[in-house]
Amino acid sequence: MNKNDSIKKIYSLCEHDYNFENEKELKELLDPYKEGAIGIAQLNPIVGNLEYNAKKIIKYIKHAQSVGLDFVVFPELALVGYPFGNLLDRYPNFADENIKWLNQIAKMTEETAAFVGFVGFDTENKDKICSTIAILQNGVIQKIIKKSDKNASVVINNKKYLIVSGDNGLENIDGNCDVIINCCASITSENYNQFQILSLLSKKYSTPIVRVNQVGAIDNFSFDGASVVFDKNGEVQAFAKTFEEQFLIVNPDNNLGKIYQSTEMYNQCHQKDEAFSLDYEKDLERTYKTVIQGIKDYFRKTGFKRAVLGLSGGLDSTVCAVLLADALGAENVFGISMPSKITSNESKTDAQQLAQNLGMNFATLPIKDIVESANTSLQGLFSNIETKWSGRYKESYTMDNIQARSRAVILWGVSNEFGSCLPIATSDKSEAYMGYATINGDMSGGFAPIADITKTKLFALARWLNKNREVKNAIPESIILKRPGAELAIDPNTGKPLCAEDALMPYEFMDEVIWRIENKKESYNDMLNSEFLYERTHKTTKEQKIQWLDKFYKRMNSALYKASIMPPLIYVDSKPINKYGKQPITASAINYKGNSEEEIRKILNT
Amino acid sequence: MNKNDSIKKIYSLCEHDYNFENEKELKELLDPYKEGAIGIAQLNPIVGNLEYNAKKIIKYIKHAQSVGLDFVVFPELALVGYPFGNLLDRYPNFADENIKWLNQIAKMTEETAAFVGFVGFDTENKDKICSTIAILQNGVIQKIIKKSDKNASVVINNKKYLIVSGDNGLENIDGNCDVIINCCASITSENYNQFQILSLLSKKYSTPIVRVNQVGAIDNFSFDGASVVFDKNGEVQAFAKTFEEQFLIVNPDNNLGKIYQSTEMYNQCHQKDEAFSLDYEKDLERTYKTVIQGIKDYFRKTGFKRAVLGLSGGLDSTVCAVLLADALGAENVFGISMPSKITSNESKTDAQQLAQNLGMNFATLPIKDIVESANTSLQGLFSNIETKWSGRYKESYTMDNIQARSRAVILWGVSNEFGSCLPIATSDKSEAYMGYATINGDMSGGFAPIADITKTKLFALARWLNKNREVKNAIPESIILKRPGAELAIDPNTGKPLCAEDALMPYEFMDEVIWRIENKKESYNDMLNSEFLYERTHKTTKEQKIQWLDKFYKRMNSALYKASIMPPLIYVDSKPINKYGKQPITASAINYKGNSEEEIRKILNT
Repeated sequence: MNKNDSIKKIYSLCEHDYNFENEKELKELLDPYKEGAIGIAQLNPIVGNLEYNAKKIIKYIKHAQSVGLDFVVFPELALVGYPFGNLLDRYPNFADENIKWLNQIAKMTEETAAFVGFVGFDTENKDKICSTIAILQNGVIQKIIKKSDKNASVVINNKKYLIVSGDNGLENIDGNCDVIINCCASITSENYNQFQILSLLSKKYSTPIVRVNQVGAIDNFSFDGASVVFDKNGEVQAFAKTFEEQFLIVNPDNNLGKIYQSTEMYNQCHQKDEAFSLDYEKDLERTYKTVIQGIKDYFRKTGFKRAVLGLSGGLDSTVCAVLLADALGAENVFGISMPSKITSNESKTDAQQLAQNLGMNFATLPIKDIVESANTSLQGLFSNIETKWSGRYKESYTMDNIQARSRAVILWGVSNEFGSCLPIATSDKSEAYMGYATINGDMSGGFAPIADITKTKLFALARWLNKNREVKNAIPESIILKRPGAELAIDPNTGKPLCAEDALMPYEFMDEVIWRIENKKESYNDMLNSEFLYERTHKTTKEQKIQWLDKFYKRMNSALYKASIMPPLIYVDSKPINKYGKQPITASAINYKGNSEEEIRKILNT
Repeated sequence: MNKNDSIKKIYSLCEHDYNFENEKELKELLDPYKEGAIGIAQLNPIVGNLEYNAKKIIKYIKHAQSVGLDFVVFPELALVGYPFGNLLDRYPNFADENIKWLNQIAKMTEETAAFVGFVGFDTENKDKICSTIAILQNGVIQKIIKKSDKNASVVINNKKYLIVSGDNGLENIDGNCDVIINCCASITSENYNQFQILSLLSKKYSTPIVRVNQVGAIDNFSFDGASVVFDKNGEVQAFAKTFEEQFLIVNPDNNLGKIYQSTEMYNQCHQKDEAFSLDYEKDLERTYKTVIQGIKDYFRKTGFKRAVLGLSGGLDSTVCAVLLADALGAENVFGISMPSKITSNESKTDAQQLAQNLGMNFATLPIKDIVESANTSLQGLFSNIETKWSGRYKESYTMDNIQARSRAVILWGVSNEFGSCLPIATSDKSEAYMGYATINGDMSGGFAPIADITKTKLFALARWLNKNREVKNAIPESIILKRPGAELAIDPNTGKPLCAEDALMPYEFMDEVIWRIENKKESYNDMLNSEFLYERTHKTTKEQKIQWLDKFYKRMNSALYKASIMPPLIYVDSKPINKYGKQPITASAINYKGNSEEEIRKILNT
């Protein structure tokens, strides 16, 4: 076998790494590349679940040992999962616990070393914890490297490896080593300038850089993996699969490494958009995978299995349904059409057609009775309240919103009645920014899959789904062509359901404002004084623009309190509207009793 | 006038500092104490509202100048308000903006200096911001002190003042000065060990310490003020009002300072409870004021004026009603009794009696019709779903929860129909921990006033309210004596509404688990192996204790997703269940257009 063929064979064997069936063959094939060959374990941990994570870590260490690698490297904090919020406040023994597990993992190591991220204690202040990497080998912890340690290195088989934790740690390295190892837990982002930094650094020091990143979703945070090796010339030599757990074998010094280039976006990873564009094409696969992984992992890690959602025949619930069907299996998704008197016939048939195309469960339940009894009760109540309170709106949205809220009562009812079932909030990002959604209505649910995707991007995603999913054109064309609206009220001017753009502003304009805030750090005045994409094709007076910008900011600020009540959502862009950090929900499978050293040994068979 | 009388007079004039009518008289009285006399401006800022804050700051500077003080000191980040979350991401010019305002404030200063906290830029990295204090005097910024600057001092009228930002900054001071000035923005807490540190430090360096703290609430965070001066012997020499904006005149060197000792708790501020106790007495006034300020400021700063809530006749909604009436005025609160067939007659009359005692608005609306139409619709739907999905619960909570959700539809309807009205989520902390509340039901609302108060503390608070409010015994005794329960289902054993303790565990036990987690950093095993207060009076087998602890932890973890959907709540304890940091909702009144220097000058008349 020539060199190329053996390397190809190595990777075909690696493809099936979960079975580890061909370790002997792999070991033989790897022999010529053995000096400096290492494993990248791109891990998908369950945060707080030490048992689950430790078992996975050990599986990969054993595999690396079997095939004769120098060492295997894991993401930052691999043993614990990142981020872990205030988990250590709730579980005061947790850091001690993770060290117990680490000690046991160390015992499993032989010649092949392992770089394992865990929660360590600060040397000076025992009450402070810090992200730490342990070098395990020959049954013991050989070395401990804290995130704050600068230029910490370890020598393995005569090669010097510089160990750097986190993206920011790269700023202060001296490059005096054979290979730089960068252990990360970095969230997916539409901009990959981190890769540019890595490429420049490897060139600067004429040293290969290995970046190992966490994969999988933890609550809102979706990690893409995208572990990468740059050779000493700054060229990508290896690139792991994105959004999948993987064990990748590389030899940074010896030109061994496969490039799994899964999305177009990563090819263009050194570029960053300088202007807003409706051409979302190069980010749609990443967006899709981010959300799919986010749904999958949220459900899997919290123990939910099924989803129920209202199918309105509109774009938001439609795209949600497709994503849920792909993530959970169509049989685990129930779409319910809940027409009111405003709902058009087209919406009803579109919803049904969509469900049929996806093969998901579908039912129709008109909400007329609930809405009418709520309306009747409320009219009496309002007359009563009016005797005490002024300020009753002459034209209110109350009756419109009753429809959305009655639907939520139905969905939560299904969730109560059938095990492991979560109702879905279908709000999109544009409407979340504008507060153009009903609290306790379409904003209500246990999870919000698309709340960080703007409307114009959703249209592009719908077309992308129709083109790229195995079953083509699942989304009826009429849904994509329809102008979005909540179908809660009739527009007096047209006699048809009110369109959102008429009440707000063109989505193209709105989404550019959002994009500029999040990506360009632009102010109101920056926006007022520069041309929008929309303006190139639609003559827009300055007065009109001012009116839209004013409306945007006013609505955005008024909507903050609505956003505070939103369920967890999947972050797709780098600056979603309600980003925050707290104890992860996916830590709910934690072993709350803790384990004695003995119990851990028993679980691990050590 | 003797010395004591003049000082008393000074403070009686200060009581009315909002009018500043007697500045001339005050100036004369202060003359003997002038050398080293300073003003503490315990400010309640609106986060992000530079105009509002700057105007307040200037008002106090002018006052300090008029009465001839050496300087006036403001809390940390006073110009901006703290915390501000990701405000600076949304408003990229905001830091520049705040400096513009600061420059203008500087121009207003004369001989009397002002120490003003603002958002500064890092000297080395212009993209990084940092908490900074500006020393303003004679029309210019004399000095800039960053939070990271150690032992930064300023000399004013021959006295050397060491400036320290934040609680943690005190760790590394050298004490080489005449007075230590500590500018803070520290949230209220049930433990005041910070005061112990200040007292020890002033003794250690034989130097007075002046701590100036922010007051007022910003979203979940309630700041108590409690600005304090320790003399060089570590004794409290001055203590500002708690939970009120105040301008306090002190002379740390010259024994001038009034002690406004408002709560028993602050008298015992150096103590910390070592064991769980049901004697909440010494923390009830602080708890009450924390929540009252939290409601007041959330409504005031976001523009809401009125609240609507369901009155069940149970403890949670009762205490919420009292707190809302006290914070917003009884006329701005509407309580609605929404009985279902489970609701007892006692609950109905209790609710009505409470409303009458409080003088708040009250209406009754039976929910029978809505519940029945929802139930009827759902039964048909469930039969349909059952043909596709297994796992339908034989005994579900669906019908119970429909009642709570129907009530939420009513409350949100009122909020939609009447201006500036927010529905209230009445969940308490014990039930939030246990997930013993209905999503989209009693957990639903725009704000949750008591979600950080445990049930046993709520009972104590109810009794405290009956004793300490102007109108005594507003809460009917029968409400306090009733065993809590949601009144959503009948207990088959008793034929009466199911009690929460029977479904969960005794509240006394539950609340001690919460207390130990939050205050003692105890693990499951720590709890299992030590005696609970409950056990002293109730014989409890180990099996029973294990069962309760297991239930507690399982429920707590399952409830995390419910907690993620809770509306903003007021933090009373130091570690509430869903603590997080994000963009403050109270920043919604921000001037989003920004102001040119000229406009600012115009607004300020500079």
